[in-house]
Amino acid sequence: MDQFSLRAYALHKQAQGKIKTVLSVPLDTREDLALAYTPGVGHVATCIAQNPALVNELTNKRNTVAIVSDGSAVLGLGNIGPLGALPVMEGKAALFKRFADIDAVPIVLSTQDPNEIIAAVTAIAPSFGGINLEDIAAPLCFVIEQALQKKLSIPVFHDDQHGTAIVVLAGLINACAVVGVDYKKAPIVINGAGAAGLAIFELLWHAGCRSIVVVDSKGVLSNDRTDLNTYKKDVAQKTNALKGTLHDVLKGAQVFIGVSTGNILQSEDISIMAKEAIIFAMANPTPEIMPDEAHKGGARIVATGRSDFPNQINNALVFPGLFRGALDYGIDQITIDHMYRAAHAVAGLVEKPDQNCIVPDIFDPRLAPAVAKIFVSDMVQSGS
Amino acid sequence: MDQFSLRAYALHKQAQGKIKTVLSVPLDTREDLALAYTPGVGHVATCIAQNPALVNELTNKRNTVAIVSDGSAVLGLGNIGPLGALPVMEGKAALFKRFADIDAVPIVLSTQDPNEIIAAVTAIAPSFGGINLEDIAAPLCFVIEQALQKKLSIPVFHDDQHGTAIVVLAGLINACAVVGVDYKKAPIVINGAGAAGLAIFELLWHAGCRSIVVVDSKGVLSNDRTDLNTYKKDVAQKTNALKGTLHDVLKGAQVFIGVSTGNILQSEDISIMAKEAIIFAMANPTPEIMPDEAHKGGARIVATGRSDFPNQINNALVFPGLFRGALDYGIDQITIDHMYRAAHAVAGLVEKPDQNCIVPDIFDPRLAPAVAKIFVSDMVQSGS
Repeated sequence: MDQFSLRAYALHKQAQGKIKTVLSVPLDTREDLALAYTPGVGHVATCIAQNPALVNELTNKRNTVAIVSDGSAVLGLGNIGPLGALPVMEGKAALFKRFADIDAVPIVLSTQDPNEIIAAVTAIAPSFGGINLEDIAAPLCFVIEQALQKKLSIPVFHDDQHGTAIVVLAGLINACAVVGVDYKKAPIVINGAGAAGLAIFELLWHAGCRSIVVVDSKGVLSNDRTDLNTYKKDVAQKTNALKGTLHDVLKGAQVFIGVSTGNILQSEDISIMAKEAIIFAMANPTPEIMPDEAHKGGARIVATGRSDFPNQINNALVFPGLFRGALDYGIDQITIDHMYRAAHAVAGLVEKPDQNCIVPDIFDPRLAPAVAKIFVSDMVQSGS
Repeated sequence: MDQFSLRAYALHKQAQGKIKTVLSVPLDTREDLALAYTPGVGHVATCIAQNPALVNELTNKRNTVAIVSDGSAVLGLGNIGPLGALPVMEGKAALFKRFADIDAVPIVLSTQDPNEIIAAVTAIAPSFGGINLEDIAAPLCFVIEQALQKKLSIPVFHDDQHGTAIVVLAGLINACAVVGVDYKKAPIVINGAGAAGLAIFELLWHAGCRSIVVVDSKGVLSNDRTDLNTYKKDVAQKTNALKGTLHDVLKGAQVFIGVSTGNILQSEDISIMAKEAIIFAMANPTPEIMPDEAHKGGARIVATGRSDFPNQINNALVFPGLFRGALDYGIDQITIDHMYRAAHAVAGLVEKPDQNCIVPDIFDPRLAPAVAKIFVSDMVQSGS
C-alpha cells in the first residue's frame, strides 16, 4: 500500500465520517426544548401543513441535498455496492458544505433496480431541496434521472453526467480561445460513451459543436452499428459519424476528450491530430495519456482529472454552486441551458486563459457564487 | 395566536432548520481534498467493499440514525403529511444530537402505503446505523416496524410506541414505590389503543403486570367485541378483560395511563379509583385531567407529557441513550427485554422518588449513558 493511501485510510479512521450534524438552535433549557420541539413545533407543523411553501422558510429542506448512489459505478472502481460507496458520498457531502454551505445527506441504496431506486428516491424526496445522483452506472442512470425529473418538483442532477460535462465545456471554451479556434467548429473526439461521455456529447451539441465523434470500446458510434442502446443510437444519428476506430478518427481532430480507460494513447497518437491539439485525458486515476507524453506528440493544452497536473477538470468546480443557485432561486429543474450558462460562468472566471490555466482554482471563492448566479435570469424571465 | 406559538414560529424562521452539517475533516488545501475525496477515498472505498464491517470504522454510518415519518400521526395533530412533519423530525434530530451526540437525518415520506414505506426504508438503510420510526399511525406502524425489523440488520425502533412505553414503565416503577404497591399487581387502566397504548400494554405485560385493562374509543377491549383488529384482539385475549366503559373499569383501579384524548376525566372519576391513585395523563397538549383536578379527586401522583407540571413523561428521556447504546454496542435489534432494562435504568436514576419526582430530569447528564449501558450485558452474553 502506498503512503498516500495509508494516510487517507488513517484520516478516515480518525474522523469516522467526514461530516456530522450540529444544532442550529439552543437546547439548554426546558424552554428551549419547548420552543424547538413539543409543544412549540406543533404550531410550526400546523402552519406548514396549511401552507406547504412555508416548509422552505421554517425548516432546513431548502438547504438540504440528498446524495444518492447505488454503488454501481463508484469512481474508477466499478460496482462496489452501497457500503463501499458511502465514504465517497460522505466526501461529496463534505465538498457541498465546504464550497456552498449546503447540508448534504449521503444516501446509499441496497438496490440497483432502477424502478426500486426511482420509488425510494420519490418516497424520501419531501425531506430535500434537491437530489444529487452519484456514481450510478449507465445506461440505467439515464432512466433513473429522467424518471425522477418527471416525478419530482425539486432539481435532480446526476453529477457524473452533467457536472463533468459542464466543466469540460468550460475548459473547452478557454482552451479553444488559447489555441485560437472556434470551439463550435473544432473537430472533437469523445472517447467513452458511458454516463459522462454521453452527457458531454449532449452539452457540447447544445453549445453548438457540430463536429463531434463519440467512441466506445467497440469503436466509433456510427449508424451502421447494431449493438447500440437508444442513447448511443441517438448520438450516432446526430453526429452522422465516421466509422472505424479511435485511432481512425483522431486524425485531424482538434480536441480529444477521454472519459473511459487510462493509458490508451501515446505521443504518436497525438501527432496525427490537428496542430496545437487539446487533450482532456480524464480517466482516473491514470489518464489516457500523461501530460508530458501528450505535449511530446504536439499537444498544446492538456487537462486531466488530477490535482497534481495543471488544468484539473473537476466536478467540484460546478456542483456546489449549481445546487446553491438552484436552491436559493427555487429552481425545480436544472436544464441543459442552465448547464450551458454554468459552463460559461466557470470559464469566465479565468481572466487570461493560458495553456496551464483553462479553468479556475477549486478554492477560488468567486466560483460557487458565480455559478449560482446563472439562475438569476430565470427569475427575471418568470418575473418573480 | 398565543405568544408562545409566535415565539416558536420566530425561532424556526430565524434558524431555518434546527440542525445543520459541519465538516469533521479539514478541506483547506488540495491535499486535504485529495485525502478526503478523490483519489484518497478510493482506497477507503475499496477496503470497505472487501470488508464491509470496516464501514463502521471509516464512515459515519455507525453514528447516523434516520428519523422516518410518513406524517400520518404527527404529535396530536393527526395526518398532516410529510412537510408538516418535517420540523418535528428536525426537532427530534436536534434532541438526538443534544442528548446523545447522534447524527440524525429527518426523512419524511411522500407515501403512506406500508409496502412502499417498507421498500423505501429498506432501500436507504445501508446509509444508517439505525432507523427511528416516528409519528406513523397505528395499526400500520406495527406492520411497518415488524417488516423492517425482519429485513434489516440494524435497529428499527418506533419511538411513539416503545419510547413512550419505556418511560411509562420507568415512571410506574417509581410511582408504585412511592405509593407502596407492587406495580406487577396494581390494577392498571390504559386509555388509548393506538401505537402508544398497545406498546405500553405489551411492555407492562412483559414486565409482569397482569391486571391491565385497555380501553379504546368504543370501550374496554374485550373478547366479545367484533370490531377489534389483530393487535387489539391479542390484548383482549391476554387481559381477559372486563366489559364496559372507561368509567366502569376505573372503579378500584390503582393506575390510569392516558394516551388518547385530552380533558376526559374529572375529579369524580378519580375518586372512584383505589386510594392514592397514580394518574399518567399524557394526552398532548391537553392532558386527560389537569393535575390539580386529579389531586382533588384523591390522586397521589400525577404525571403528564408537559414540561410545566411535575413528572414529565417524555420519550426524550429514553430514545437518545437507547440508540447511543445500540449503535455503540453494535446491537442489531432492540428487544422488549432491552426496553424493560431501559425502563429500570431510567427509574434507577431517581434516588429517592417522591410524588413530584418519579422520573429523572431530561438534562440529567447521567441519563443517556445509563440507558446506553443496558446493552453491556448483551456483550457479556455473546462473549464479544
